Amino acid sequence: MLEPLKNDTFLRALQGQPTDYTPVWLMRQAGRYLPEYRATRAKAGSFMNLATNPELACEVTLQPLNRFALDAAILFSDILTVPDAMGLGLSFVEGEGVRFARVLRDESSIKNLAVPDMAKLQYVFDAVRLIRKELAGKVPLIGFAGSPWTLACYMVEGAGSADYRTVKTMLYQRPDLLHRLLEINADAVALYLQAQIAAGAQVLMIFDSWGGILADGVFQKFSLAYIQRVLAQLPHSYDGITIPRIVFTKGGGNWLEQIAALEVDCVGLDWTIDLESARIRVGHKVALQGNLDPMALFGNATQIQAEVSQVLAAFHPSSSKTRITSKGHIFNLGHGINQFTPPENVATLVNAVHHQSRLLRGCT
Amino acid sequence: MLEPLKNDTFLRALQGQPTDYTPVWLMRQAGRYLPEYRATRAKAGSFMNLATNPELACEVTLQPLNRFALDAAILFSDILTVPDAMGLGLSFVEGEGVRFARVLRDESSIKNLAVPDMAKLQYVFDAVRLIRKELAGKVPLIGFAGSPWTLACYMVEGAGSADYRTVKTMLYQRPDLLHRLLEINADAVALYLQAQIAAGAQVLMIFDSWGGILADGVFQKFSLAYIQRVLAQLPHSYDGITIPRIVFTKGGGNWLEQIAALEVDCVGLDWTIDLESARIRVGHKVALQGNLDPMALFGNATQIQAEVSQVLAAFHPSSSKTRITSKGHIFNLGHGINQFTPPENVATLVNAVHHQSRLLRGCT
Repeated sequence: MLEPLKNDTFLRALQGQPTDYTPVWLMRQAGRYLPEYRATRAKAGSFMNLATNPELACEVTLQPLNRFALDAAILFSDILTVPDAMGLGLSFVEGEGVRFARVLRDESSIKNLAVPDMAKLQYVFDAVRLIRKELAGKVPLIGFAGSPWTLACYMVEGAGSADYRTVKTMLYQRPDLLHRLLEINADAVALYLQAQIAAGAQVLMIFDSWGGILADGVFQKFSLAYIQRVLAQLPHSYDGITIPRIVFTKGGGNWLEQIAALEVDCVGLDWTIDLESARIRVGHKVALQGNLDPMALFGNATQIQAEVSQVLAAFHPSSSKTRITSKGHIFNLGHGINQFTPPENVATLVNAVHHQSRLLRGCT
Repeated sequence: MLEPLKNDTFLRALQGQPTDYTPVWLMRQAGRYLPEYRATRAKAGSFMNLATNPELACEVTLQPLNRFALDAAILFSDILTVPDAMGLGLSFVEGEGVRFARVLRDESSIKNLAVPDMAKLQYVFDAVRLIRKELAGKVPLIGFAGSPWTLACYMVEGAGSADYRTVKTMLYQRPDLLHRLLEINADAVALYLQAQIAAGAQVLMIFDSWGGILADGVFQKFSLAYIQRVLAQLPHSYDGITIPRIVFTKGGGNWLEQIAALEVDCVGLDWTIDLESARIRVGHKVALQGNLDPMALFGNATQIQAEVSQVLAAFHPSSSKTRITSKGHIFNLGHGINQFTPPENVATLVNAVHHQSRLLRGCT
């Protein structure tokens, strides 16, 4: 039996319920900025060895929680495990980033693609199960996946890209092929997230990292529609417990209303969005997660505290007299934490969020 | 004496006057996608040799106009000529992009920086003069500069960057230093654009290529304010002729109203913005320029024509009964043309814009 949850602040904020303070976690919180992560990574030998070993994945997932009073854990993994399970051969090249051994650029390779057997991703579900056990109810665990479009970018390009010319050429020349690829990705991601829930994930997040490079009109058809196809296949609760969903489209500020209209509980925001106007635009349908520039963590303690103050203030206009002025805010960065961030600055950030948000609510 | 302007469609659209069709030009229209450009570039030996030679700069500026019925010419140059004139030592490394020999990372290097003697940029003004003469009134000539913030990104980083960590660290740690750098950049850019006007530039454009990486609140203080500092120093007319100004912040969709509130005649839009809502947001204060995804030029002729149709339709809602439904639209890409674009597709684009926009106006 799993221990009951001791800190449900994150889950409450996701569902728009009152909280004593603003919960905080950081995208890529288990990562290279932590010396203990680098040690485990070195021990594993390669990123894939680390990601596919449930014990090591669990170890690095818990590392930031041992240092900082974070309100959520997020599974240590990579969005590209799904295309890897489809047979594309994922590797991480030191200093260069991700590489797929095989890419999808012609009709036959896409026609032959299929939703993978989830048994190939058993290492992920084993990691989720182990992390839940080791967390012992400390904070909730977030499971995640890439959006169908974001996965397609890597599957067609074979790696990261400055302009995503190959996948966009397919988009404009052969939209039919790309739609077929996106359907398969959506159904694979849905199965993958369902299995993460069954293994113990308490919150789900979809990372639409490259939605923001699409043209208006194209984004809706090639990214948003397939995120919805994923969401429509997920249960809203499991074993009687609600499983909230977060969608984050980096660079998606222009489409905030449309993202919030999905079957989601929370929308992630990058740092280019004015939070007060974001709240006005989406109303109270969803919680909002974000949105400090990760580079703000390179300031000194006083500067970081001032930046935290500005983000919190946007959700708590001084004119308001109510205890909770908006349907939920989860503090986060607007993108993954930078690998050169001094860990002590993360402590400053987390403590500032907790301290200042208690004061804003009139709690001590 | 210069010949009178034969095609003023672009100037009229910039000023919100009626036009028989929608004018079109393309960012980086003189560039690597043209075999004749590559031949001139090879003859010059290096990008800097090409950019600093007025005859060659004139030659490549005119190349796209000889192929396509474009409605404007844009000076062939680079935004980094200004920091080069400040002594930073610009070079273009094949396959890697720009490099500065010296970077600005400490207090003393920034304290020693000064607005450069414009004589060091005489090659630019000579090119402008020569292009005006050779254009012989065919279409108007656009002069341009980088925004103070965008220049600062390169001056502090020393090159392009994936995350602009160095300049952002300065922004968060030492905003005072960055403000000093931005002031100098703004005053240098203002002098530079004044001299381009005196040499014959008929329209000015400021490229804020990296404004979109800034956080909301930070963008206003570190980019927008210094664009305004430039604009405030420029004459609205020269020799009795209006000199319209265009400002383009890539990724600036969230700040459209604030950009339009500058002393500008036109705002450039990237492809992530819904044009109809952009028009609603800015009203009729400014003309709008954009905003096809450059990658749409990798489709076939029918697909390109359909994309053009969608962009034009956003400015001409079918419900409208008036001949001119908005204060000016200039068709452009949402970013520079990709170097692998087939030139024949540019011909398709330009002809489609002219043909379809005439039909939309009820002209033939």
